[in-house]
Amino acid sequence: MNKDFFQGYKGEALKILKKFNVRVWGIAEIDTSRGLFKGTVLPRAENDDDKHIVIKIATGYNIGVATNTIKTIKEIGYLKANYKIPEQEFPFTEHLPNVKLIGTGGTIASRLDYRTGAVIPAFSPGELYGAVPELADICNLDTEKVFAVFSENMGPDQYKQLAIAIGKEIEKGVDGIVIGHGTDTLHHTATALSFMVQNSPVPIILVGSQRSSDRPSSDAALNLMHACYAAGHGDIAEVCVCMFGPTSDEYGFLHRGTRVRKMHSSYRSAFRTLGDTPLATVRVGEVKALKNNFNHRRKDRNVEIYPFFEDRVSMIYFYPHMHSDTIDSLVDLGYKGIIIIGTGLGHVNKELYPAIERAKEKGVAIYMTVQTLWGYVHMFVYETGRELLAMGVIPLENMLPEAAFIKLGWALGQTNDLEKVKKIMLSPVIDEITLREPYNGYLVYQGGVPEVEEFIKKFRK
Amino acid sequence: MNKDFFQGYKGEALKILKKFNVRVWGIAEIDTSRGLFKGTVLPRAENDDDKHIVIKIATGYNIGVATNTIKTIKEIGYLKANYKIPEQEFPFTEHLPNVKLIGTGGTIASRLDYRTGAVIPAFSPGELYGAVPELADICNLDTEKVFAVFSENMGPDQYKQLAIAIGKEIEKGVDGIVIGHGTDTLHHTATALSFMVQNSPVPIILVGSQRSSDRPSSDAALNLMHACYAAGHGDIAEVCVCMFGPTSDEYGFLHRGTRVRKMHSSYRSAFRTLGDTPLATVRVGEVKALKNNFNHRRKDRNVEIYPFFEDRVSMIYFYPHMHSDTIDSLVDLGYKGIIIIGTGLGHVNKELYPAIERAKEKGVAIYMTVQTLWGYVHMFVYETGRELLAMGVIPLENMLPEAAFIKLGWALGQTNDLEKVKKIMLSPVIDEITLREPYNGYLVYQGGVPEVEEFIKKFRK
Repeated sequence: MNKDFFQGYKGEALKILKKFNVRVWGIAEIDTSRGLFKGTVLPRAENDDDKHIVIKIATGYNIGVATNTIKTIKEIGYLKANYKIPEQEFPFTEHLPNVKLIGTGGTIASRLDYRTGAVIPAFSPGELYGAVPELADICNLDTEKVFAVFSENMGPDQYKQLAIAIGKEIEKGVDGIVIGHGTDTLHHTATALSFMVQNSPVPIILVGSQRSSDRPSSDAALNLMHACYAAGHGDIAEVCVCMFGPTSDEYGFLHRGTRVRKMHSSYRSAFRTLGDTPLATVRVGEVKALKNNFNHRRKDRNVEIYPFFEDRVSMIYFYPHMHSDTIDSLVDLGYKGIIIIGTGLGHVNKELYPAIERAKEKGVAIYMTVQTLWGYVHMFVYETGRELLAMGVIPLENMLPEAAFIKLGWALGQTNDLEKVKKIMLSPVIDEITLREPYNGYLVYQGGVPEVEEFIKKFRK
Repeated sequence: MNKDFFQGYKGEALKILKKFNVRVWGIAEIDTSRGLFKGTVLPRAENDDDKHIVIKIATGYNIGVATNTIKTIKEIGYLKANYKIPEQEFPFTEHLPNVKLIGTGGTIASRLDYRTGAVIPAFSPGELYGAVPELADICNLDTEKVFAVFSENMGPDQYKQLAIAIGKEIEKGVDGIVIGHGTDTLHHTATALSFMVQNSPVPIILVGSQRSSDRPSSDAALNLMHACYAAGHGDIAEVCVCMFGPTSDEYGFLHRGTRVRKMHSSYRSAFRTLGDTPLATVRVGEVKALKNNFNHRRKDRNVEIYPFFEDRVSMIYFYPHMHSDTIDSLVDLGYKGIIIIGTGLGHVNKELYPAIERAKEKGVAIYMTVQTLWGYVHMFVYETGRELLAMGVIPLENMLPEAAFIKLGWALGQTNDLEKVKKIMLSPVIDEITLREPYNGYLVYQGGVPEVEEFIKKFRK
């Protein structure tokens, strides 16, 4: 068979496909030592693994079938045509805003999720127009892929590259920027860009999707439309995350980059603003601000880019009976900053005190956040907190642990002077510390209160 | 002045109090280089610190004033009498159930929180009767302090001691057990006891308070009353956490020990069941089950106690660009088990792969949970997950990270055979893994939807 029939496969997996005459996009029945599997054989992309054949099963999920379990494969159909995206030129409309879509890996609106290895790219304006024609009524779209990295593999290098790319686009005169991003660390990148790109004249909107666009319940197209609308038409000129709002698809949320966190592994409404109100709701046609204090869109092209990051920063998630050696080893390895995610109001056990004192003596910056995620660090209330304060551990108010980690890397990237670092850490750039948290930012449990349950159920229909 | 006037003070702090003739319980004006502070000088308890004088200020909070900032102190009043708890014999009532209250540190209903150093003990039945007379209408109370440790300093030794103490009480014939506990690691201890004490014939209720009982908004008395009612009268014979329910004081919640987590650093409604429905609502007079699958109260005295724990277990909270050295060092230090708290559906970056493979080769048990807290680990969906699975990382479904940490310590405490450990980890003892999560267990954001906002506001009044 033609080489194109085995797109991306190699080694063991390729050998087996050839042996049984089964093609990519073939519908296969795979008889294995673990039972019979049926699904469409998917092509593979970023892939060091030659030990699995990946199929999309009826539920929409993709599974990898280990080659060493396979007895036989039978191709019972072929489906490629279904996955073709029609490409058409993206129309230019005089009065619409110009939006730049920056890609960071894979495609935002492919028929299959890029990360599964099953890539039908929909990334060029023409492909996106074919996949989501509604976009042409929202904006004039231009796209550029700055790199291709899974979101869990992103880090400081990618943050800096993005910050610089954003600066250039603003200079060139775009009306708004959309960044396509995997959802795993979407909130980390949003936080990093909130610090690295300040005082932007245009919206900078990060967007992703929780369900790949070949699934009927996909949020990819809607999120992209909302993000393009907020970028091109919205007045909120900040680094935001635009994702699915409530549990219906009525609207999307704009979340401030420093206060957003992924709170569900699979729901489309996974992204939530914690300890604050979301910035806005987004529908195509309306960005409705829920807060007053935001950066407004401007006509000028001024923006401040601070692409700094110190790589040797770590995070410690405290657990009972934690030993000193966990912190000692980080200090010995040369880490310059540690974010502790403590219990309660910002506590750890006494066993860690000697390691914390030693770390401070060696000039390691140590900051405290809370693993409750909601609420403030308050280290003056209890003996333990006061003892940690006396050792030089610095409380970070209601900064989210992830935001604290990113900010400490950013601060230490600018200076080694720990007093200056402290000043940076405690001076909010954009609401990573707030004066108070709104009551409706906290988890409300409706169960057990029939009236509320009934109401929420109705609202969700 | 008499030595009793300086209760708990030593070193620098004691010297200053003596110099200015200021007593514990004196109302002091302290002039410092950071400004003027006014409040009641509190006694000190567990205390290695001689560098602070602790005062309770008008807001109810306690603050530590550093001795090296103090210029002068003036005593302008004295308040001791206000903090006295009247002691009366706890009445015995024939038809009421017998409840044993086990103390783990300090007092559950002191006039001042035990951890501030300001201890007016209310722990003996007589003292508790003086502080919360309503208890005598709920049960016959007997108390015992098994140790005195701040909750952030608790660990395996305390879990084992508690499990054994619970076993003895059940044997002796009590109708229910209440355990007073600090809130920092209340959920860790509840999880540990859920595994260590199985098939109990009576309720085992952990209780704490988020606000010390000298503050008008304290939840101490109400939580204790609810806990005693659930222990003495309730039908749910399990290890539960009993804390403040919604944001009014209408009722308390019973949370299953393996599914509860502290979600707010300071709210009274801080404890929440995640990924499941709470077990019950509790009012004095009614334990109303919200679930069907629970252990019912029995008349027999059979209970299984498994007081095992392997101490060398650690937790890794993944962050972008995490380096291999963080895991390598844990392996070199002899840790036998690692819980990874991954992003998304259970992912880490490629940079950790060599360290994970090395750890597996050295026989370290590695399990995956998700930092989203809600939702399941699904490692077969994406390439990264499949690669981690291939390396031997084992997904823990919807087990909470803290529950996974405690369970891995408990499993490795029983056997070094990693296959047996895996079997223990993946066989739920009591809902630490569930088949599905209810829709109303997830964070609902009401903001931006006026109808829901209005409703919730009304409901909260």
